[in-house]
Amino acid sequence: MGRLSELFRPETVGVVGATDRDGAVGRAILENLRAGFSGEVVPINPTREEVLGLECYPDVTSAPSIDLAVVVVPPPAVLETVREIGEAGTEHVVVITAGFSETGSEGAERERELREIAVEYDLNVVGPNSLGVMSTGVGMNATFGPENAREGSISFMSQSGAFITAVLDWANEQGIGFRDVVSLGNKTVLDETDFVRTWGDDPKTDVIIGYLEGIDDGDEFIAAAREVTDETPIVLVKSGRTDAGAQAASSHTGAIAGSERAYEAGLEQAGVIRADSVQQLFDYARALSGLPEPDADGVAVVTNAGGPGVLTTDAVGDSTLGMAEFTDRTIDALAEAMPEEANVYNPIDAIGDADVERFGEAIEIALADPNVGSAVVVSAPTAVLEYDQLAETVIEKRQAHDKPVVTCLMGGDRARAAEESLREFGVPNYFDPSRAIAGLDALARYRDVRERTIDDPAAFDVNRERARTILERATRRDDNRLGVESMDLLEAYGIPTPDGDIVDDPSRARDVAESIDGDVVLKIVSPDISHKSDIGGVRVGVADEDVYDAYEDVVARARNYQPDATILGVQIQEMLDLEAATETIVGMNRDPQFGPLLLFGLGGIFVEILEDTSVRVAPIGEGEARDMVDEIRAAPLLRGARGRDPADVEAVVETIQRLSQLVTDFPAILELDVNPLVAGPEGVQAIDLRLTVDTDTL
Amino acid sequence: MGRLSELFRPETVGVVGATDRDGAVGRAILENLRAGFSGEVVPINPTREEVLGLECYPDVTSAPSIDLAVVVVPPPAVLETVREIGEAGTEHVVVITAGFSETGSEGAERERELREIAVEYDLNVVGPNSLGVMSTGVGMNATFGPENAREGSISFMSQSGAFITAVLDWANEQGIGFRDVVSLGNKTVLDETDFVRTWGDDPKTDVIIGYLEGIDDGDEFIAAAREVTDETPIVLVKSGRTDAGAQAASSHTGAIAGSERAYEAGLEQAGVIRADSVQQLFDYARALSGLPEPDADGVAVVTNAGGPGVLTTDAVGDSTLGMAEFTDRTIDALAEAMPEEANVYNPIDAIGDADVERFGEAIEIALADPNVGSAVVVSAPTAVLEYDQLAETVIEKRQAHDKPVVTCLMGGDRARAAEESLREFGVPNYFDPSRAIAGLDALARYRDVRERTIDDPAAFDVNRERARTILERATRRDDNRLGVESMDLLEAYGIPTPDGDIVDDPSRARDVAESIDGDVVLKIVSPDISHKSDIGGVRVGVADEDVYDAYEDVVARARNYQPDATILGVQIQEMLDLEAATETIVGMNRDPQFGPLLLFGLGGIFVEILEDTSVRVAPIGEGEARDMVDEIRAAPLLRGARGRDPADVEAVVETIQRLSQLVTDFPAILELDVNPLVAGPEGVQAIDLRLTVDTDTL
Repeated sequence: MGRLSELFRPETVGVVGATDRDGAVGRAILENLRAGFSGEVVPINPTREEVLGLECYPDVTSAPSIDLAVVVVPPPAVLETVREIGEAGTEHVVVITAGFSETGSEGAERERELREIAVEYDLNVVGPNSLGVMSTGVGMNATFGPENAREGSISFMSQSGAFITAVLDWANEQGIGFRDVVSLGNKTVLDETDFVRTWGDDPKTDVIIGYLEGIDDGDEFIAAAREVTDETPIVLVKSGRTDAGAQAASSHTGAIAGSERAYEAGLEQAGVIRADSVQQLFDYARALSGLPEPDADGVAVVTNAGGPGVLTTDAVGDSTLGMAEFTDRTIDALAEAMPEEANVYNPIDAIGDADVERFGEAIEIALADPNVGSAVVVSAPTAVLEYDQLAETVIEKRQAHDKPVVTCLMGGDRARAAEESLREFGVPNYFDPSRAIAGLDALARYRDVRERTIDDPAAFDVNRERARTILERATRRDDNRLGVESMDLLEAYGIPTPDGDIVDDPSRARDVAESIDGDVVLKIVSPDISHKSDIGGVRVGVADEDVYDAYEDVVARARNYQPDATILGVQIQEMLDLEAATETIVGMNRDPQFGPLLLFGLGGIFVEILEDTSVRVAPIGEGEARDMVDEIRAAPLLRGARGRDPADVEAVVETIQRLSQLVTDFPAILELDVNPLVAGPEGVQAIDLRLTVDTDTL
Repeated sequence: MGRLSELFRPETVGVVGATDRDGAVGRAILENLRAGFSGEVVPINPTREEVLGLECYPDVTSAPSIDLAVVVVPPPAVLETVREIGEAGTEHVVVITAGFSETGSEGAERERELREIAVEYDLNVVGPNSLGVMSTGVGMNATFGPENAREGSISFMSQSGAFITAVLDWANEQGIGFRDVVSLGNKTVLDETDFVRTWGDDPKTDVIIGYLEGIDDGDEFIAAAREVTDETPIVLVKSGRTDAGAQAASSHTGAIAGSERAYEAGLEQAGVIRADSVQQLFDYARALSGLPEPDADGVAVVTNAGGPGVLTTDAVGDSTLGMAEFTDRTIDALAEAMPEEANVYNPIDAIGDADVERFGEAIEIALADPNVGSAVVVSAPTAVLEYDQLAETVIEKRQAHDKPVVTCLMGGDRARAAEESLREFGVPNYFDPSRAIAGLDALARYRDVRERTIDDPAAFDVNRERARTILERATRRDDNRLGVESMDLLEAYGIPTPDGDIVDDPSRARDVAESIDGDVVLKIVSPDISHKSDIGGVRVGVADEDVYDAYEDVVARARNYQPDATILGVQIQEMLDLEAATETIVGMNRDPQFGPLLLFGLGGIFVEILEDTSVRVAPIGEGEARDMVDEIRAAPLLRGARGRDPADVEAVVETIQRLSQLVTDFPAILELDVNPLVAGPEGVQAIDLRLTVDTDTL
């Protein structure tokens, strides 16, 4: 497969299906290409000898060699055309034509064949059902949209062509420029991961942004994005966040929506900054494309008005940033330079009669403070303040100090002109203080992404073969739901379980109980009975001499509750001291896009009523496992709040990692719950287990 | 005091301190007034005979009778001037001059005197330190700002003059109009409550909006706003939401900031819709000023693009609204009218080649559906879609169906013109789908405010005199912190407490214990020992025969822990069955602005670790008390989740109301905590009590 970056930098572009027919897509693309493309444009159409003054070729074979083929032929002709393109040695293809998987089974079959041809000829295929691609560096607009992009450093992918059209129309008016733009279409061959990788390698792309309705391979995406975000920020709108939205997305793209919880965790783990709206997407992108990262979280606010200063301070309070605490030197310098009525603490209120010079002094002094990582200039329009000159001053100070500065020059017309010159020098101006601070916040969040270290998943010394045997043995029962009878699976991966055994007669039950110190717990073992306690299938604190009768009682109750239930036996388990322990839950659900999604929470009401859980896409290392424990709201309880004994958090962290290893080693495990995992002052014990296995995968 | 509405509709305005000196505030105001005011403008200045071509009078006494006086004289002359104005019989005064409480103690004294003069002459005074007032109906711009407002139906108050300047500059560009505008300044006499009342009575004000840094009298504001919001929505930015912001606000206005928690509860109880940013303020106001309220929560989305349709659906999912479920009739009609590839379920995707006619059909069919309460039209720019015509169609359909419709016509220039005609007919157009839905959401939230019924606080039959006696007796100890020795206070207000008594010798302890069925609990009673359990000051489950020794033990431990502690005795209390009960906390803190702030939560970790509490400003009725119980996250636990016995929620609700009555009756109670209030399956019991009393107020 040719380097994907060449798709955006071709020397010759062929348009297969080019035409001069009014209103035709094949004409619109040709016109857009002719309008600015620095290379050669080759129309291809067997029914024309010339199109819009360009020599037209009957087919790809007879045309000059082309680097990128744009296909706009009718649906039934696409497959043959793409094959010809492959035969001719062209590596990059954009299929504009719609009528594939988005239209039903016939289209889906056609799309499957398109994928096969792409594999056979090793083709980079964008689409089908794509608006096209743009690359401003070579003046290429290979789309049928009404707008071309301005030159800039933002590369943009979208799963919706309309979204590109809408955004460009607005961005052009705002003077926001792009590097490459791609309409992903049905993502039959090339998807978001491919473009993230390509733009990550492109020195002229400062920010990667995108609108996505789904991610095809979450695992691969996380790996690629983690690498790319070391150098280039990624900001994404992933729609279908809400239940209603997910349903709409699935009906729009025909894709199976993964869970929002998995996207949330996966994108965070990937280092992606997520935006919830078009406005946020560009508010973040504008800051990330022109400003350096802050080296401190303290923000300085410089304003000529108290009210907007307070609003800005609120916005800082809402963000991950904080108000910079000025050094004495800064305060002295401000007191010297500002009038008496000014506020020289942060926010700096240079008061209503501040002119550009006074603003400049305040900005200069603030940016020189080592506690100031970034600054925002917020101004109300006054008779003494020239916004154009203020813009110049801001640009000058920003460059001199190499710290990020954003502005919120409030007002209408008079702010517009200043905004333009600010933009030219990479300083974004925002409509209101909360959006300005959101821009600075995106910079700080990206810095945190770059600075984070992600541990490699630990490779514990486990007994993988034994685990496989247990899974296979269990599934031989022809039931994919397993329970406590498979607790050995946890032991095989080094997760402690209480002493005991599963037995199928009362005498054996007594023998097991006698081998255990103290009283025991009896639990019915049946794949058909899930709420064991409710039906009397659990007996707690049973003395050895009572075990025989208790066995019979527990079995009788189970039989009575459900006569046809499969009863695998009764579990005789060591009785743990739960007084000083905390019940936790660790579990896993396999997401269609991201794979194994680990879950952690405290047991009982914390998970069921308060929904206080943390999730991560496996596999994870120690740091992420510890984050899972720390980020639940009830975490202080594990750490020993309110006079409790602290639980052995390290053992919990290790258990989460061992579970991560287990579910990564066995993709056949579809769901797994250790509930409860009891965390005592020393060590943990898995008390109960349920899992679902895909017996075909095993 | 004259009717405040006359302040905005004067026939004659006097400018005291009018001048023709370049750059002077007194000139700016005169020029602004002359520019459009329909009434007469009277300059007053002893050093001029004529100002800007108008006859100038030396003082108010010699000038013709004026309805509104605008004062711009230097600070030392303000008091004398306002007195003269009062003498002359003018009722409305705007003091522009700064240099009052915002500048220090001398200014604060001057402000106090200004208030006295206002009271003496019964004057409506705006300011001091105000930008001025505007009223577009009479063309009056009595401010020194650079911009005048356009005519409209939004009335606007601001505690920041700069905020007004900034907003008007932008609003004029956007074509957003105002009815009255007031810069509140230091709010010495007139404050937010006065203007809320005035505009609530003004038929030409459709929405009241404001920027506030504090509310002077929370109680009075809630009462006024509740009445006004029956007819007129109120949207406020209350800044100082965050700790940092509150600090900045307090340094800006010199006001003591109340707690954000109190503002949040108080504004919600008042029926105010709160905005967090300038953008939100106007996004809400634009919807509220031109559209009817929705009569159903279902939103119909009509679009020509799948991606933006999904984004819009997400925004609906984030709001209090829901996607409308179309009737079969609607779906059939859409299937008939739309092309085959269209999505006729909600969101309606009329697909990329939709022209205005097709959009119109889809909007028409959607609005005719009884499940559709409101609609949003979201469009990407295409070659076949004329935005101007689309705007006309939207206006026509909106009016025909009298349901709220908003638009999100995406794109740049081409959206602008359409936006203008939409605005003229009250249809707001928004930059992105999430903001459009926020606009519709504001309408639904306002409808809910109007429809809610607020119960009058119940007047329980309590023993107020006994409560007063207990408070007085207790405070005679010269300690304003009271504890269990004052449990009778709760009894006096009908809040049950366990059987028992406080005694100061071991034999009495035994007598009390013998009078109680079963074992008892002993607790040391001392204002100096707050964590009784930790020091061994509590003994649980003590049999009658052990009470004597237990008494001595508890006292000894307390003495040992703190030899100089005041020990009031030992409480002997009935031992409750806590097994089936739930510990809750009810409490009160007195907020400087809003007064008694009631708090409810579950005991222990729920309040301390999870911070799961609800608050309301007292007094409250039954409905609000029940909401307090229902809105904590852990509420299902009280209602009997996970197989627990349901607690007696009605008794909890009643206790909250009785506490509300107690703290309302006694403003001297500064803080009060009943922790725990144990809620059993039948009834509640207050186990422990702490309160702080202002002995001076009592």
